[in-house]
Amino acid sequence: MHQVYFDNAATTQIRDEVITSIVEVMQNNYGNASSSHSIGRSAKVLIEKSRKAVASYLNVSAAEIIFTSGGTEADNLILQSAVRDLKVKHIITSKIEHHAVLHTIDQLVKDYKIAVSYVDLKPNGNIDYLHLSTLLKSETKTLVSLMHINNEIGNVLNIKKVSELCKANDALFHTDAVQSVGHYKLDLQDVKVDFLAASAHKFHGPKGVGFAFVRKNSALKPLIFGGEQERGLRAGTESVHNIVGMERALKSAYNNLEKETQYILSLKQYFIESITAKIQNVSFNGKSGDMEKSTYTLVNVCLPIPPKKAAMLLFQLDLKGIACSKGSACQSGSNQNSHVLNEILCEEDLQKPSIRFSFSIYNTKEEIDYVIDVLKEFIE
Amino acid sequence: MHQVYFDNAATTQIRDEVITSIVEVMQNNYGNASSSHSIGRSAKVLIEKSRKAVASYLNVSAAEIIFTSGGTEADNLILQSAVRDLKVKHIITSKIEHHAVLHTIDQLVKDYKIAVSYVDLKPNGNIDYLHLSTLLKSETKTLVSLMHINNEIGNVLNIKKVSELCKANDALFHTDAVQSVGHYKLDLQDVKVDFLAASAHKFHGPKGVGFAFVRKNSALKPLIFGGEQERGLRAGTESVHNIVGMERALKSAYNNLEKETQYILSLKQYFIESITAKIQNVSFNGKSGDMEKSTYTLVNVCLPIPPKKAAMLLFQLDLKGIACSKGSACQSGSNQNSHVLNEILCEEDLQKPSIRFSFSIYNTKEEIDYVIDVLKEFIE
Repeated sequence: MHQVYFDNAATTQIRDEVITSIVEVMQNNYGNASSSHSIGRSAKVLIEKSRKAVASYLNVSAAEIIFTSGGTEADNLILQSAVRDLKVKHIITSKIEHHAVLHTIDQLVKDYKIAVSYVDLKPNGNIDYLHLSTLLKSETKTLVSLMHINNEIGNVLNIKKVSELCKANDALFHTDAVQSVGHYKLDLQDVKVDFLAASAHKFHGPKGVGFAFVRKNSALKPLIFGGEQERGLRAGTESVHNIVGMERALKSAYNNLEKETQYILSLKQYFIESITAKIQNVSFNGKSGDMEKSTYTLVNVCLPIPPKKAAMLLFQLDLKGIACSKGSACQSGSNQNSHVLNEILCEEDLQKPSIRFSFSIYNTKEEIDYVIDVLKEFIE
Repeated sequence: MHQVYFDNAATTQIRDEVITSIVEVMQNNYGNASSSHSIGRSAKVLIEKSRKAVASYLNVSAAEIIFTSGGTEADNLILQSAVRDLKVKHIITSKIEHHAVLHTIDQLVKDYKIAVSYVDLKPNGNIDYLHLSTLLKSETKTLVSLMHINNEIGNVLNIKKVSELCKANDALFHTDAVQSVGHYKLDLQDVKVDFLAASAHKFHGPKGVGFAFVRKNSALKPLIFGGEQERGLRAGTESVHNIVGMERALKSAYNNLEKETQYILSLKQYFIESITAKIQNVSFNGKSGDMEKSTYTLVNVCLPIPPKKAAMLLFQLDLKGIACSKGSACQSGSNQNSHVLNEILCEEDLQKPSIRFSFSIYNTKEEIDYVIDVLKEFIE
């Protein structure tokens, strides 16, 4: 049976050229990058070349890129150290952030008794910028943590505006950019975030590697202590093959950005047009139905299916070879609704099933036809 | 030029069959193990099979194995949570532990004002078990963190004895077993450590993956918060290819353990005999010259070379294609002496250069001949 993979916001297929790079490193560069002999130095060169390249894509300096085991670790490094070392006493975030942010903050509240404010959300999932301004008038040292692109509903935060609000109010700004790095051009000289988290497996790179952007002189300290790797900010022997693979994936992403963006955008457009034409009374959650104001990579659809029947929906799609999800993969084992949709949908819409379909360059319009036909059949 | 890699305690070459497994996963199993559809479940199956296998090698249950990004993260997870969540107020360790342990403890002292005791060391690098017993008579909740095999001098801790001392005194016991997992048979039903850290790249597996053994009902909590991966103990999308590669490496290690141990032991024996015969006044640091009471994988040699000439030694060896090290790779950038040797050597021996040579199945006696000839030439 043909598999249709429409869950690219959860993770992506690794590009062939990325696999080739990873294999080459595993075969030929097994050195420990901290060793001073030539085999070690070769590994070090690979890492530093990767760092320089990753930094260049974001228009930052190499010293500001800290390789981690993924986006979650990067979020944890930034948030935990901001409170422990930078003495942040107040975090402003939203209830629709990824759990890597929300659960880390919960722990920081327990350990350090910091204050947390949740910025108000509009029914479309956008934050209320006015409320954010008000919250920023806090007297204590404040960090704002808001994601660039919401992983469930695709809303795009105006990170430039938020960074300016933060600067004007002497607050630090961290953005989880796991859904945007590799998908959008980011210029961090223009957009003055202090911290950013990214993950390779969201842009066709390997799992188990990501990075934190940590703006110079921020005085951040490690989450993981030990050796002096990553200029003292992240101990542990570097995963050279994964780091090189991440850089290769980012290179492909940015080299082909325009073309691939247009292609994926056309898929999303086609999906929205087709499902609207073929199935009555569908609606799109958050801003995800808005071709201009949401990410081109995903759509989150609320389907007109009664609760009893809805329980079988994902199961049926899976049987038909269709991979998609109710929301974040990190919660998908549970039967609870998405914490994101719970915040923004009305009671009536929460009764209906919502499904996130997320696209990549490896998808086709034929797959969309197939998926929508399966959905239509299920509904009728 | 032929490269001689005698730095296997820093990191090891990846076995071919491990690379094959990793590539297979990257090509065919790109799912997110937290996704509930079949592509996600396939990834989950790979992880859980790997967990079961890893657990079986140590004779523990799968639920007690937590995959991490490496040994350093595993040490940090255990030590940080022991203090934060298990309310440990006193850590007993030694001054010759790996920095992943020592620097983490330093940070815990700052953050939680815990007490730290360093167990006395004998000149041969072994701990003073009597002193450990005395230190264990502490009234406060205590954790002992002592490594199984010292990465620089190869001394083997009697972890069974230490675990029994800890049990008798109601203390927890963590061992950094980064140099022993995959090199020694470990039966954790017999040896009742509470926690253990391991790293794949030390046993011919990939870099960027390791595991923590966390004995059941220990109430440990995460270091990295977010999704519910690793049964809530370690958030972040799992590095499926690395986890499968680690298991494959461990499988090869334990399937061939006896044969490979004998082979590497014969290399060490040959090295010691040859260098003793060809170069006068060499000595062996710690227990590393003792074929029975140190690990078979490494030897740490103190060479009769005056300080001025010694400064060029590693550089000269590197020029001749020989990779070895002064001590832990994690410190090798620095010009300082090894913190391990500083603790155990007399002033006179500290003036002379000490080099760690660490072996693997990929080494040969011919390489040893070559290295010793180069050393002899350098000295004369």
